[in-house]
Formats: sequence, C-alpha cells, structure tokens
Amino acid sequence: MDLLSIKDPSFLKAMNNEELKELSADIRKFLIEKLSITGGHIGPNLGVVELTIALHKEFNSPQDKFLWDVGHQSYVHKILTGRASQFDTLKKYKGLCGFPKMNESEHDVWETGHSSTSLSGAMGMAAARDVKKEKNYVLPIIGDGALTGGMALEALNHIGHEKKDMIVILNDNEMSIAPNVGALHSVLGRLRTAGKYNWAKDELELLLKKIPAVGGKVAATAERIKDSLKYLLVSGVFFEELGFTYLGPVDGHNFDELFENFRYAKKTKGPVLLHVITKKGKGYSPAESDTIGNWHGTGPYKIETGDFVKTVTTAPAWSSLVSETVRKLARTDERIVAITPAMPVGSKLEGFASEFPERMYDVGIAEQHAATFAAGLATQKMKPFLAIYSTFLQRAYDQVVHDICRQNLNVFFGIDRAGLVGADGETHQGVFDIAFMRHIPNMVLMMPKDENEGQHMVNTAIKYDDGPIAMRFPRGNGYGIPMDEQLKEIPIGTWDVLKEGRDACILTFGTTIPMAMDAAEFLEKQGYSIKVVNARFIKPLDNDMMHQLLEQKMPILTIEEAVLQGGFGSAVIEFAHEHGYHGAIIDRMGIPDRFIEHGSVNQLLAEIGMTVEDTVRNIKRITPKKQKRA
Amino acid sequence: MDLLSIKDPSFLKAMNNEELKELSADIRKFLIEKLSITGGHIGPNLGVVELTIALHKEFNSPQDKFLWDVGHQSYVHKILTGRASQFDTLKKYKGLCGFPKMNESEHDVWETGHSSTSLSGAMGMAAARDVKKEKNYVLPIIGDGALTGGMALEALNHIGHEKKDMIVILNDNEMSIAPNVGALHSVLGRLRTAGKYNWAKDELELLLKKIPAVGGKVAATAERIKDSLKYLLVSGVFFEELGFTYLGPVDGHNFDELFENFRYAKKTKGPVLLHVITKKGKGYSPAESDTIGNWHGTGPYKIETGDFVKTVTTAPAWSSLVSETVRKLARTDERIVAITPAMPVGSKLEGFASEFPERMYDVGIAEQHAATFAAGLATQKMKPFLAIYSTFLQRAYDQVVHDICRQNLNVFFGIDRAGLVGADGETHQGVFDIAFMRHIPNMVLMMPKDENEGQHMVNTAIKYDDGPIAMRFPRGNGYGIPMDEQLKEIPIGTWDVLKEGRDACILTFGTTIPMAMDAAEFLEKQGYSIKVVNARFIKPLDNDMMHQLLEQKMPILTIEEAVLQGGFGSAVIEFAHEHGYHGAIIDRMGIPDRFIEHGSVNQLLAEIGMTVEDTVRNIKRITPKKQKRA
Repeated sequence: MDLLSIKDPSFLKAMNNEELKELSADIRKFLIEKLSITGGHIGPNLGVVELTIALHKEFNSPQDKFLWDVGHQSYVHKILTGRASQFDTLKKYKGLCGFPKMNESEHDVWETGHSSTSLSGAMGMAAARDVKKEKNYVLPIIGDGALTGGMALEALNHIGHEKKDMIVILNDNEMSIAPNVGALHSVLGRLRTAGKYNWAKDELELLLKKIPAVGGKVAATAERIKDSLKYLLVSGVFFEELGFTYLGPVDGHNFDELFENFRYAKKTKGPVLLHVITKKGKGYSPAESDTIGNWHGTGPYKIETGDFVKTVTTAPAWSSLVSETVRKLARTDERIVAITPAMPVGSKLEGFASEFPERMYDVGIAEQHAATFAAGLATQKMKPFLAIYSTFLQRAYDQVVHDICRQNLNVFFGIDRAGLVGADGETHQGVFDIAFMRHIPNMVLMMPKDENEGQHMVNTAIKYDDGPIAMRFPRGNGYGIPMDEQLKEIPIGTWDVLKEGRDACILTFGTTIPMAMDAAEFLEKQGYSIKVVNARFIKPLDNDMMHQLLEQKMPILTIEEAVLQGGFGSAVIEFAHEHGYHGAIIDRMGIPDRFIEHGSVNQLLAEIGMTVEDTVRNIKRITPKKQKRA
Repeated sequence: MDLLSIKDPSFLKAMNNEELKELSADIRKFLIEKLSITGGHIGPNLGVVELTIALHKEFNSPQDKFLWDVGHQSYVHKILTGRASQFDTLKKYKGLCGFPKMNESEHDVWETGHSSTSLSGAMGMAAARDVKKEKNYVLPIIGDGALTGGMALEALNHIGHEKKDMIVILNDNEMSIAPNVGALHSVLGRLRTAGKYNWAKDELELLLKKIPAVGGKVAATAERIKDSLKYLLVSGVFFEELGFTYLGPVDGHNFDELFENFRYAKKTKGPVLLHVITKKGKGYSPAESDTIGNWHGTGPYKIETGDFVKTVTTAPAWSSLVSETVRKLARTDERIVAITPAMPVGSKLEGFASEFPERMYDVGIAEQHAATFAAGLATQKMKPFLAIYSTFLQRAYDQVVHDICRQNLNVFFGIDRAGLVGADGETHQGVFDIAFMRHIPNMVLMMPKDENEGQHMVNTAIKYDDGPIAMRFPRGNGYGIPMDEQLKEIPIGTWDVLKEGRDACILTFGTTIPMAMDAAEFLEKQGYSIKVVNARFIKPLDNDMMHQLLEQKMPILTIEEAVLQGGFGSAVIEFAHEHGYHGAIIDRMGIPDRFIEHGSVNQLLAEIGMTVEDTVRNIKRITPKKQKRA
C-alpha cells in the first residue's frame, strides 16, 4: 500500500493477517530504501515491524499509551501514525526526529533516547489513570538490554508491588533465535516444573519446535550467555515472583501469536510481562546476518550489496585515538583497566579488549555501576579508564561526586561525544558535562585541541596520580595532522597561546578552536590584533595566564560547545570577580539555556550563534574603540 | 573488657565464643551509653555487634576488605579498630565520623554514606586483586534495603557474570524474625525443591525451628511483604541464577553459625552470598521493639526510659511545613501525588499518606525511578510532588535532565536538607543542588526565607503549570513566626527587598538571610547603608531588579549555602556580563571547592568563612571608599 497516504493507524482495524503481512513487506521495503540514503537505526526497526503493526491494530493509540524504551525503534510507529512522508528528513535539521517526539504526533506520549526509562514512565501513567478512574492500556516496549539497567529494575519492583494494570512488552531481540535455544530451553524447563503456567506451556512447546537447529546449537549457547541477569529476567520465575503475569515467549514476527497473547494480556488483571522474541534486521539479509552490531544504527548504504557508503578520511576517529593510546600505555602500565557501559564498539575498545582481555570490562547498560566499579579499582591503586559518552555520564553523576571525587580516586574519564552530536538530537547532545563536572571538588577536566594533543592528554591523564581526571572529546574524527612519536605530559592547569594579540583574547578549547582562529585571522585583516588561547584545562584554569590577561585589561571572549550556565566561561568570570578584577570585560559564547534538537553540528552551531561571523561580531563588541590600522 | 584499650582487631583471634559474647555485651553497653549522649545510628549498630566481631575474628582486615554499605552501621567496626576513645566526639566537628573514613583508619577501605555502592566497589577491589594476582577476601556488607537500589542490582549482575571470588554479606535486618517467617518459609521451600542446596538445608531447618511462633504469625506475614523484589532477592534462586553460591539464612547473633558459614564461604570459588538475619536494636529494648524506624538514627536519649531528649521548639520542622502544605492543597487539587524514595518519615509524609493513601507512593531506595515515575504522572496532567533530600537527588540527575526538564513536565521537587546538614558530614551535605540544577533548561529553582514564605512557595509550585519547579529548604526547623491563613502565589522570578540601602547590596536567600540582615544592621551603625534582597528565585533571576542594581552601579555581595562554582553567585555575574555591565563589582560568598566534613552547621560556616563578621568584611571590601557618616 501507499505508506505516504497513512494518516493514523485506524486503517489497520479492517485488515486481515494476509494484508498485514503485505503491509509488513511494504514497510520493510520502505525502511530499507529510505535509510539507505539517510542512515538510521535500520536493524532495530526491521525487527519490530510486525510487533508495531500488531500493537497498533489491537490497541488504540493515543488513548492506549505506547512507551518506546530508548526510542530508536519507533520508525514503524512513526510510519503508522502518519509520518512516512517525512522520512527523507530523518534526523536532519528541522526534520523527523530519530526518537519519539511529543511535538511530532499525539501518538508519541513519552520521549526517549536514554535507556531504561519506559517502565518508570509507564508506572506514572498507570498511577495517573487509576487516580483519574480512566480506562486505558499502558504498554512500555523495552529491549532485553535496557531491562538490565538499574533504573528499569527499580521500576519493575515498584510496578510488581503496586500491582498496576500494565502490559510490559519485552522485545527480546538479542536472543537471536538459533544461538540461544539453550537458554530458552532451560526457561521452558522452569516454566514446566513451576506448574502454574498452563496456558503458555503448549504455545511454548510449539514455538520451540519451530526454532531451527535445537539440538546442534545448544553447545555453542553457553558461550553466548554473557549476561546472566538477562536470562534470569526473561525467565517467568523472576516476573511472577515480582507480581507480574508472565506470558510467552512468543514469536514477534507471527501475527496470530501476537494477537492471541495481546488479547490474553488485556483480560489479565495486574501487570503482565509479554516476552516477545524478534530478530534484529529481519527481512534484509546484510542486517539480519550481522552479529557484532554494525547494522544497529548506520549511515547510508548500498541496498544490493549492503556496503556502507563511507566518507574517505585518513584522520583517526576520536574514540580510536583515545582507546588506542590507552592500549599503548597499557603495555607498560599494568594498572590500566578499561571499562565501558555497553559501548565497546562505539568507544573503539575492541583492540584493547583483544590485547588485554583480563583488564577489559563491558558492564552492560549500567553507568552507575561502571563509575563506582572504577572507584573500587582505584582504591587498589589501579588506573581505571572509564570510556563513556558525555550524555550517558549524566546517569553516574552521584557516583562521580560521592564515590570518585569525594574519595579523590585516580579514575580517568574518557568523555566521548562531548559537545553537539548532531543527528541524534537533544537526548544525546553532550553539552552538560562541563556544568555538572566543574563544580565537583578534586576533578580535573580538560579537552584537547587536536588528536596530537589528545594523545598527550591521554598520557597525562594516565600519569596523573592526584585524583580524578577527565578528558572530553567530540564525536567524529580528528584533523589528520602529524602525530608525535613520543608521548608527553602536559602540566595540569596550563593553557597554550596559539596566536599572540594585543586588543582582545579568545579563550577556547577543543572543537571551537578553528572557528576562533578563523575569526582572529579575519579580524587581523581589519586591523585587530586578537590573541587566541587553547584553554585546554577547563578545571583548573591556568591561573598565571588568567592573572596576566586580567592585569593587562585584555577584553576576553570565551567560547565553548557546552551550556553557558555554570560552564567554562562562568569559571573565567568567577575567577575575575574572585580576584577583584571587577572592571574586566568578559563575554561568553556557548549553548543557550534550552535543549538543542537534531541537525548537522554546523547547522546547530549556526542556529545558536556560534559561527566565525558571530565570533567576529562578539569580539568587535568587546573591543569597540578599535580603528582600522594601516 | 576495656574497649578503650583496643588498638586493632588482632586480640579477637585468641578469644573463644564465651569471651566473644562477653565482648558483645560490653560493646552494646558502650554504644547504648555513648550514643545516649551524642546520638547516632543506635539501631543498626546494635544489630551488627556479633556479625562485626565475627568478621574481624575470622578475616584479616585490612588485607581482607570490609565495605560497609551506607556505612552508618560501622560503629562496632570502629571500636574494634582502635577508635573507642573517640566516641565522645561522634559526628562532632573534627570528631569521629558517623561513616567509614579512610583518613581515620587503614581498616576503612571504602567510604560510604549513600546507599547501594558497596557491591560495585567490591567488584573493583576483586578485579584489582586478580590482576595483581594477590590473595585476599573482599566482603561487602549490604542491607536488604540497599540491595534493591538499581545500582546494587547492576553490580550483582556484573559480579555474577564475572564469577569473581567475593563474599557478599546480606545483612537482612528488616526481616525482623517473627513477622517474616512466611517469606523465609517459602524461600526454604524453594531451596528444598531446587535440590542443590544440600549443605545449607539442614542448617535452615534448624534455624526455622528456633524461630518462635512459626505457625500463628504466618497469616500476618502477607501484609508485611511489601517489597516483593526484596523477598525475591533474598531467595537463593535469584543469586544462584546470577552465578552466586547462596548460603544461609543464618542467625546473625550466633557466633557458631557465623563462623561455620564464613569458613564454608572461604572455601567456595566464585561469588558467595551469605544471608545473615540480624535484629536492629538488639539488646536494648526500646530500640529492639521499635517498628517504625524511630531508633534507626537518634539524638540523645535517656537510657532507662528510652525517652528522646528533645529540644523544645514551637517552630515547625521544614519537612512538616512542606508536606503538610502539600497535603492541605491536595484536598482541593486531585492532581497532587506525593512520592518519596524510602523517606516517608524523614520527609514527614505520614499525614499525607494516611489522608491520601491512593495518591502516596513510597518507591523504596530508588531515586532514579522516583524521578521518572513523577515524569510519567506529569505526562497525564497530574501534579507529582517529589519529596527528596538534596544529596539523594544527585542520583537522579539524568532523570531530571532527560525525563523531566527535557519533556518540560510539571514536577514539583521538594528538595529537603538543602545546604549544610551538619553531623552527617560530607556524604550528606546538600550543597551541590544549585550547581547541578541551575544549568538544566526549563527548571525553576527557589528557596524561601522562612516558613511563612515557604508555604506560599509550595502553593506557587503546585499552581505553576509551565514545567518543572523546585523548592529547596534546609534541615531542621523554621523560626516560629506567624503564618498567613491564606495561601498566596509568588510571581515567578521576583525577589523581595528586605532592607533598603544605597552603598551596597546583599543578594541572598534561605538560611543565610539572618546573617545578611545582622551584617547590614551592624554596618548601619558604622554609617553604611546596605540593601538586603531576598533572592528567593535562584532561577530565573529577578531580571528587573538585576538591571536596576547594575544600572545603579551598586556593589553586590551574593551569599549562598551551596557550592560557589556554578552557583547562584555565578548566575549573578553571568547576568552582569551577558548584559554588558562589565564594570560591575560583584563578590560571592558560599561553599569553597572542597568537600565539607561533619560538625555543627555553625562550626562549618565559621570554618568556611560564612559568619556575620565575614559578611561585614566582604561588604566593606567592595565598598572601600565609604566614610563613617555622622
């Protein structure tokens, strides 16, 4: 059918299963084509085509509430709620968001991006419904990975205790069918002996029989059972003990099974956990046969071959630069241990993991534990390297304060994706880290100007033994500049003058340095003499240089790709006032006090007034008397 | 024995069980006497006397690592490690800390205060030990409540997966023996059928027989089983599935049982969970018979009667004022729902709970879930009131950013214990909230000057429908001032001039207002004319008043009982620079960039330079030319 003609999901009510299957095929074709151009989360969305269609047919959105955990699997939902025509703009500036967005549709009732929030949100919606004595179904749709996040477990406990009516859809998409038969098998064993799962039992036997290669693959299974909690969670026992009615597992690509289970769930009082097995990438063989997560989220690709369309660059990815430098240092420094909360590929830790398997820990989606685990290592004189995205570090704020900084432990934070991340939008922008890290006592916070300084900074962080130290670095690649052979240590709290000047000074660091340099050079031609400083230590500041600039009464412009309130620029003005430089002229550029949506980083910077032109204008404003010199 | 003569725990090795029992009695007597004068966590410590003695006899601290989760139960450990003589100074300025402190003793290897961190820390210590190929035992001691915090569950998952050697002591002190036999009973049933718990089985039967009233109390049990996850957790099944060897439950007051289990645990490879049942308040009848938590942590008391020594005050406790005002409003506003993460008594929500049981949720130690649960309620046009201590709100930072502020939902945060809390010390000071809340878009943050303004501010928060709003308020009581009958709404972003003046202006809010007024009055006598403003909105600032002050070139002193970096004072100087008032003279008083230990609030304020005298000196510095007028 013509997906562009869909206005809302009501058309599904009249469709039979055959028609739904045709629709599924149409949607898959649409997604494969559209995402081959825009990129996006192809794997997860191909996995939930039937599940999403079935949900929208059986339930009545928006009266019934769908909460898409993490949210990158909501594309089919977007198509069915009238947004197919916007897929050419997916994740682009002013275009369709890659996550649920309330302002896009009344069918998006819960916005996500970070993991494991849907159960708590659903508990709130169910509690509100019951106070208001309304009738509706609340359906969080949560993946097996997200379910092991601490917050989701807290919510399960509360939901089970309160016995709220709710249908939790467990979208178990990592249990890619064949390799995990063993686990399913043992779950089934438990269900059988428990004796009270009469209804689901026969269904399960049937499902199990349908799964190919039950016998031969069982041996391989043990190796795959990496996450024991997950397998415990997906057992009925766990949920039943918590007060849930457990249904499933059911084949998430089979409409008959889905509808039968939905109807049973609707009749059941109290919380229900419906365990649905789906296959990531279903229906597109390159994505379906992916075993390491390359097809989870992608850029553009060639449909026929499944080849990714790559931008040619010889510059190293920032994540690689950092992780590979840590790896190099780990060869002679046995204290180094690397930790990632479920991002070994994103953080480019594969090399480290293969060379130092005994010093590499992927703790799953568990940022809080990751941070305090690092603290525990550091108490024993180890040197933990916590590789974590800026936006996800937010979830470990208390652990950074209470466990790491308060105990003044030598943890090295590699804060990846710091600054604007672009296409993933407001849930993923790494713009708060300076504001939430800078005020914590004992913290050292820095950002390198390029990949060469980056490698020296990593070395500096590893050598630093006076407490926690963090290096933030952007998403994407470096500049492809020559790299020093020998690693150096950068003295803590020292800045670097990139360009001398007499009329005003720009203090900036990291990604905004080129913009500052361009502005200074442009102004040079107009007769201004602008100093540019690489303020690579955000905390502590370079006190000597600060005093020098302020004594010279140099007007200062600070620039940071981070929120202005409580940020680096605030540190600079705090310094001036603390030391009595009350006449100091200091202007700040940075992210204003609102959430920044998706788009290319350059579009977003232009929108918020962070371009070369803006920099020129701001510099001119604080040095107003300047006349063009000959 | 003379507890003051203890230097380290080595003397225990030579003691027999009879002597240990005598020692237990001596320690109990000591604790009951000392804490009757100083106050402290009497209940939890009386519960772990035998457990702590047994641990120190069987293991070798500090080579073996004890991690006391939460940490308020470490008094017996402090006595056994040579600190008995310091108990007169417990929780006092420069005295013995109420929590483990590395700088007090080499036996304190992990500092705590917040809950649920010990398992992650222990995993770090175990991983470090194995990399270094050392041999020692790592023993986190965690309560049943702390175990249900999301972070602890994340850690259990990781520990079980990695199969690290570790002995987790589950100190199950809420399962006060009689009422919970039912749960124990069903656990025992599961252990029996599982078939692989041969060793523990007989022990358990024996234990169960010893417990009084097995038959009659079972019916009452169901009502007590409030926290289903807890009861699932303490079942062997849960831990065995995760990869732990489960031992117990054992009587935590019986040395024979404890030693036998410790020895078995030492011989066991991989992680062990030893389930120990203890009785809070054991050996002191007022504490032992406490059912609602009054004897968890106390002030001074009379030993004979168990009466608390109370300071007479007619002023309402801040927590009561806030919760009771919310309760009053809830009578006519059906949108209001109250949420507490395990602090219904501390937050004085008992009245609300009894009047509106269907609109009151205690979610347990689960700050993350509490916040996002509130977000879910707010999506449905409810008005959630999240009662939470400042220091514990740190654990929900990401939820405040991602789920509440980003979705701009009407959640009312009642931030209790904001500012210095005094005796509980650095883990509990509520000094970061302004710095970690102010930079989040959409947030309104305020603090009242007294309880009368406090009630109006609560009303303002409940009426406010444009997004999240937070009111911080201090630990302790108000001033006992007259209260208005009629609740008012305070216009958002408006300050209040408390005292007019021409020479300089103090901007402050909340607890520091009296100090500012005293300083202004003192200066008045010296001929200065000092304006004092109640800057009750920390965000947004009162823009009109800010412009007015800056246009008048009034020197400004900001005062806040919160960290200086990124705080309210920073907001004021940010404003001045953003609007081009570059010559503005602005000085800031607040908490410096280090963690503040325990002591009375006044002692701490004096230490950090926040007294009337300091205020006078600072004002004089920024208005230097002033001559005494006639």
